[in-house]
Amino acid sequence: MAATYNHEQQIVNIYSIDNYTFGPKESQPEKFDSVRDRFFNMEEKYASEGMRRTAEAVMLVHRRGTPHVLMMQIGKFFKLPGGKIRPGEDTVEGLKRKLTRKLSPPIAGLGPEWEVGDLVATWWRPNFDQSFYPYLPPHITKPKECRKMFLVPLPESCQFAFPSNYKFKAVPLFDLYDNSDNYGREYAALPQQLSRFHFNHIDTIPYNES
Amino acid sequence: MAATYNHEQQIVNIYSIDNYTFGPKESQPEKFDSVRDRFFNMEEKYASEGMRRTAEAVMLVHRRGTPHVLMMQIGKFFKLPGGKIRPGEDTVEGLKRKLTRKLSPPIAGLGPEWEVGDLVATWWRPNFDQSFYPYLPPHITKPKECRKMFLVPLPESCQFAFPSNYKFKAVPLFDLYDNSDNYGREYAALPQQLSRFHFNHIDTIPYNES
Ligand SMILES: [Zn+2]
Ligand SMILES: [Zn+2]
Ligand SMILES: [Zn+2]
Ligand SMILES: [Zn+2]
Repeated sequence: MAATYNHEQQIVNIYSIDNYTFGPKESQPEKFDSVRDRFFNMEEKYASEGMRRTAEAVMLVHRRGTPHVLMMQIGKFFKLPGGKIRPGEDTVEGLKRKLTRKLSPPIAGLGPEWEVGDLVATWWRPNFDQSFYPYLPPHITKPKECRKMFLVPLPESCQFAFPSNYKFKAVPLFDLYDNSDNYGREYAALPQQLSRFHFNHIDTIPYNES
Repeated sequence: MAATYNHEQQIVNIYSIDNYTFGPKESQPEKFDSVRDRFFNMEEKYASEGMRRTAEAVMLVHRRGTPHVLMMQIGKFFKLPGGKIRPGEDTVEGLKRKLTRKLSPPIAGLGPEWEVGDLVATWWRPNFDQSFYPYLPPHITKPKECRKMFLVPLPESCQFAFPSNYKFKAVPLFDLYDNSDNYGREYAALPQQLSRFHFNHIDTIPYNES
């Protein structure tokens, strides 16, 4: 009985950034004033809920002939849309809930129908600090967080709304590559993790622009 | 019609390094004395055969509770087993041919039956030099090489034979991680690329040791 493998790059359709609109919506300020407060809350939550689970979306568009990842910029930090999954919540459902909160227009029905695609990365936080590893380090039996990144294929066109305290950025893969200084080690590894996909650039003109 | 995605880490069984034997076989010296000769040959071949295609195998075992990648060391360089695919040859068949040449005992039938699993990485060489990128860089329409890495699941136990000019190394994922200085950028990215898999450590004792 032979297993089925993906020997070829998997094909993912990506559309021009011009197919999407990006409007503002109400600010979504960070919950914690300081890194100290954030880790203090993380420890408290760990004691009551166990390992923290987070999920993030890798959404791609093309611009000037090259794939770009949609990111949210706050100050000098870049983030993928996503966040914390609730205790007992399904990871994929939790990610959809987060994407609606972060990116859908405030009027229900205007945003995209989210589709969560393949898992592209898993990162582990062994301790209550900033470091993540792409494996569970030896001797770590109680990781504090498991952080997953999923490919989220976009529809041909849609409307996004960004919380007003974030700036929208479409970052080319070639800018992320090996660039931990600007994006952190986890996002700087996305080009390598995405290299098993072939991004098929589709150049349609969406209905609303014709 | 919903596409089928892998939302969970894919499970891959890995066995203890003690399940495998590693004997020597005849030396397989490098074809070219110098980097200059190697790139000169690459240019000549490109002119007659077109884009060079290479394939490499990522084979994992466990040792002291943690996953290790099987590598071939020559001098201070580390390599995954694999090599150049012939013009017109299927990539997967070509990789199996290379694995037999590099790793199977010289007596036919003693080596493993190779099974080539999922594509884990694609790297492009835009020019006749050392640099690879995990995407086709903008404006590069004629890449010189496409280099693919595949997960190659191992049987529960088997015999390997190593060319005598190579040293056999089982390198822990945590040593590869972010360690381009020792392993080069491509291999240093393997832990991130493998983070979508869950390695299930199997601790059987193979027949020949019971
Ligand atoms: Zn195949
Ligand atoms: Zn285009
Ligand atoms: Zn699922
Ligand atoms: Zn074990």
